Amino acid sequence: MTSELDLVGATLDRLPTPALVVDLDALQRNLELLAALLSGFPIGFRPHAKAHKCIEIAKRQMELGATGICCQTVAEVEAFAAGGIGDILLTNQIVDPRKIARLAAVPENVRVGICVDSLQGLELVAAANRGRPFDIYVEVDVGGGRCGVADPAAAVALARAVRDSGLSFSGLQAYNGRIQHLRNAAEREQAVSKAAAATSVFVEALETAGLAPPVISGGGTGTFDFDRLGGTLNEVQCGSYALMDADYLAVRRPAGARFEAALTILASVISSRATHAVVDAGLKAAAVDSGLPVPRDHPQIAYGNPSDEHGVLRSALGEPLPPTASRVHLIAGHCDPTVALHQRIYAARAGVVEEVWPIVAQGIW
Amino acid sequence: MTSELDLVGATLDRLPTPALVVDLDALQRNLELLAALLSGFPIGFRPHAKAHKCIEIAKRQMELGATGICCQTVAEVEAFAAGGIGDILLTNQIVDPRKIARLAAVPENVRVGICVDSLQGLELVAAANRGRPFDIYVEVDVGGGRCGVADPAAAVALARAVRDSGLSFSGLQAYNGRIQHLRNAAEREQAVSKAAAATSVFVEALETAGLAPPVISGGGTGTFDFDRLGGTLNEVQCGSYALMDADYLAVRRPAGARFEAALTILASVISSRATHAVVDAGLKAAAVDSGLPVPRDHPQIAYGNPSDEHGVLRSALGEPLPPTASRVHLIAGHCDPTVALHQRIYAARAGVVEEVWPIVAQGIW
Repeated sequence: MTSELDLVGATLDRLPTPALVVDLDALQRNLELLAALLSGFPIGFRPHAKAHKCIEIAKRQMELGATGICCQTVAEVEAFAAGGIGDILLTNQIVDPRKIARLAAVPENVRVGICVDSLQGLELVAAANRGRPFDIYVEVDVGGGRCGVADPAAAVALARAVRDSGLSFSGLQAYNGRIQHLRNAAEREQAVSKAAAATSVFVEALETAGLAPPVISGGGTGTFDFDRLGGTLNEVQCGSYALMDADYLAVRRPAGARFEAALTILASVISSRATHAVVDAGLKAAAVDSGLPVPRDHPQIAYGNPSDEHGVLRSALGEPLPPTASRVHLIAGHCDPTVALHQRIYAARAGVVEEVWPIVAQGIW
Repeated sequence: MTSELDLVGATLDRLPTPALVVDLDALQRNLELLAALLSGFPIGFRPHAKAHKCIEIAKRQMELGATGICCQTVAEVEAFAAGGIGDILLTNQIVDPRKIARLAAVPENVRVGICVDSLQGLELVAAANRGRPFDIYVEVDVGGGRCGVADPAAAVALARAVRDSGLSFSGLQAYNGRIQHLRNAAEREQAVSKAAAATSVFVEALETAGLAPPVISGGGTGTFDFDRLGGTLNEVQCGSYALMDADYLAVRRPAGARFEAALTILASVISSRATHAVVDAGLKAAAVDSGLPVPRDHPQIAYGNPSDEHGVLRSALGEPLPPTASRVHLIAGHCDPTVALHQRIYAARAGVVEEVWPIVAQGIW
């Protein structure tokens, strides 16, 4: 094994491939762009750390004005809390008493929020929190068709039960993942209006019941342009904007500057002939659920036929295939599950590794 | 974090989900079944460890008569060598001098083979092996369209160059991954004949040149029924048969006993309502490249809509959905990349964890 520390100062051609690489300049531009785009709008910002699983990126997000971060698993909360992040919302239901006890063991100087979407789930949390205060968010289904209570009466009953159980009713989790990825901005805007209307029905029912939710959190990289106007949400949860991927690169903002592909999978060409070249990044290095990886610097070369440890490059329009032992940067199809395949990310500037960042809570929950 | 050791002796309901679970009885039956099915045939057996990345499973395979194992990455070779496996074929091209040097640093009491498919690749190996003997296999393309030399003249030239460079020409890597997954046994048999014919052309050219390959290795879980007859290959590389997955469960043997789903992803239902239930196993816990996970004990319930940390269960024909906080075993769509998403595998018998096995070389190369 090459030690991680040996690679600080190395040029990218020295990395063992496949290797996750983040371009520090592009990352910083993405982080600053979103901060600028939210500045002056009536909305808070709590980026989702499941997209990068990197303490160093979360710290930069906090420095740029994030209220806190979102996590999706208990192991992520543990890791980011240990890494110095002081305000974490677990945007998920946790029903395992042992996991709730682990959350309760997170030091109390870290603010921890979690979601509930059923009385049973709330009872499980209340029974295992060991007196540790949590911010409780009621998750509402605003069209995503996944977790969340389905109707306003259930949301009111649940928020009341939160209050009655002595826990803090801190707000609503109102995220719709599906609409983030609609390619057409006008279509996305319409979908946001629909989700906002669905959210408002929950909010009004809660207000009428004297249970106005302090925080209404949701939205993401695909919808913040519309969410930031503050019609309903008062906090957005964008995550992918930091690293970006081929899927989100195709989700264009309605206007203005765009986020850049800061993350690549650096792959080596291990075999090359007239018809195709084979790289060493396959299914174990690049998630393919939302589309295949895309070669960054080769506009006419496509990646295909992913298998466990291989991908096949084919050229259109006569662009020469890269030779054996050369290296290719691939833009991930979907950054979140791609990051989760790797133990570390090489943070580089101008082709030189400056830091090696661990991917936290990778492969554990 | 729950310590791994705390979970030995635990019932499965105590595991933090999503959790990879192997049923030790089913695993043993799979391992013994293949050993029995190859016994008495003119073929050696070198199981592919990329399918399980578990030293304990490799050891059981060696005890049942395997010649050695296959690995697909240098980090796997390092880990299995350190774990006590004494004969490892890296069924891949390695073109990075630093990785070749790492292979050369594997203790010499471990027999290490690697593949080459170009003179350039051979030169890279010969330049960096530091005098350490490797078994060199020439990879030939027998229809897979991935790595491998494309024509017999190139194979002869390369085998001759191996010999001339003072390295050992040990055989051919003649694997066709695509045909492993053909659902229809007759179609698969025909595809094996075609691949065998392609392999024979290489073998005959080498024999004519006085370079008869001692080992001709290939085949897998989908084709060993035909490969074992020994027409061309003298070694098979089955890997998935040990753990199995939904994809290979659909690749039925022409006759006789079948391999069982020994591996499951244990997931918790975190949210459940009339229309659907949500489990905590999504894209970061289950690879979806070859089909979605399949609930093991719920014939009318399907898993769908995978997102990073969620999957949605829907019922047909009125089978009741599992309630919140219950647990569901999912059969992986594709075992190899699913295993690579986890840090450990819980080895259980009759619902009780007997051992916790690390997944080796996970997220590193």
